[in-house]
Amino acid sequence: MNTEDIFIKMGLDAWHTQIKRTDDLFNSLSDEQLMKEVAPGRNRGIYLLGHLAAVHDRMLPLLGLGNSLYPQLYGPFVESADKAVSDLPAIADLRRYWKEVNTKLADGFSALAPAAWFERHQAVSEEDFAKEPHRNKLNLVINRTAHLANHLGQLSFLKPKN
Amino acid sequence: MNTEDIFIKMGLDAWHTQIKRTDDLFNSLSDEQLMKEVAPGRNRGIYLLGHLAAVHDRMLPLLGLGNSLYPQLYGPFVESADKAVSDLPAIADLRRYWKEVNTKLADGFSALAPAAWFERHQAVSEEDFAKEPHRNKLNLVINRTAHLANHLGQLSFLKPKN
Repeated sequence: MNTEDIFIKMGLDAWHTQIKRTDDLFNSLSDEQLMKEVAPGRNRGIYLLGHLAAVHDRMLPLLGLGNSLYPQLYGPFVESADKAVSDLPAIADLRRYWKEVNTKLADGFSALAPAAWFERHQAVSEEDFAKEPHRNKLNLVINRTAHLANHLGQLSFLKPKN
Repeated sequence: MNTEDIFIKMGLDAWHTQIKRTDDLFNSLSDEQLMKEVAPGRNRGIYLLGHLAAVHDRMLPLLGLGNSLYPQLYGPFVESADKAVSDLPAIADLRRYWKEVNTKLADGFSALAPAAWFERHQAVSEEDFAKEPHRNKLNLVINRTAHLANHLGQLSFLKPKN
């Protein structure tokens, strides 16, 4: 493996590790548990599930991997706070969206040529990218990994303590 | 910047972003707030402060950046659960350890030659590294960034909601 391949593997391994942990956690939680707040007065599990699905869905166009699958999630789960929207999708549907979005991302990641990871993502302009060449597609994945880890730490509170 | 320098910048930027956010949070919290549990029955702020200081301190020898500054933190804050040890350091001291450890890490990161980031860290054997060349020093920083983000999400609950 050359340095470029090694670096891509490092970034993607970190992503897949956090996805796997979050998947395992969601799979271990009942719908009833997901309706609870992760801590008193904080976001509910259902909101964070929708939030993560919405943010990951938006990564598809940002990385040039196709259109968002569920753009309707962005309003209630990113632009609105939890409990501000009364009419949320069913948890069973959100679980499916979460899996589909991450599967489409994983498939897109596998198909991306190594050099493409160092191209700019769609949330940075060509001018800015010329000055800040680290703002590439792999960097977006690295930043979203930290975002996921941040919420995973919170979601873990939905599991009863042993 | 060549590709290698860009990788390193991506990894270190993500680290420094999470450090800065955690610093800002700790600075905004009183000692009294840090004595509270982040959620009912979960770790207290003081424990997570000591835990992060201890885990980051251990990164110094793992990355070949010198000895741990405060190896005595590892027992109470990594090997023991919160509330298992009654005699913890004062919060003022823990705040200082946290800053000193991260400063020593940041200085070490700046001084490291680009090629050194792709060498193995001390928690992986030479044999394993030959098979898994992505388990290098920069990868350790990437993994610890996710660990920090995980706990930062939890610590944010110590701040009262607006």
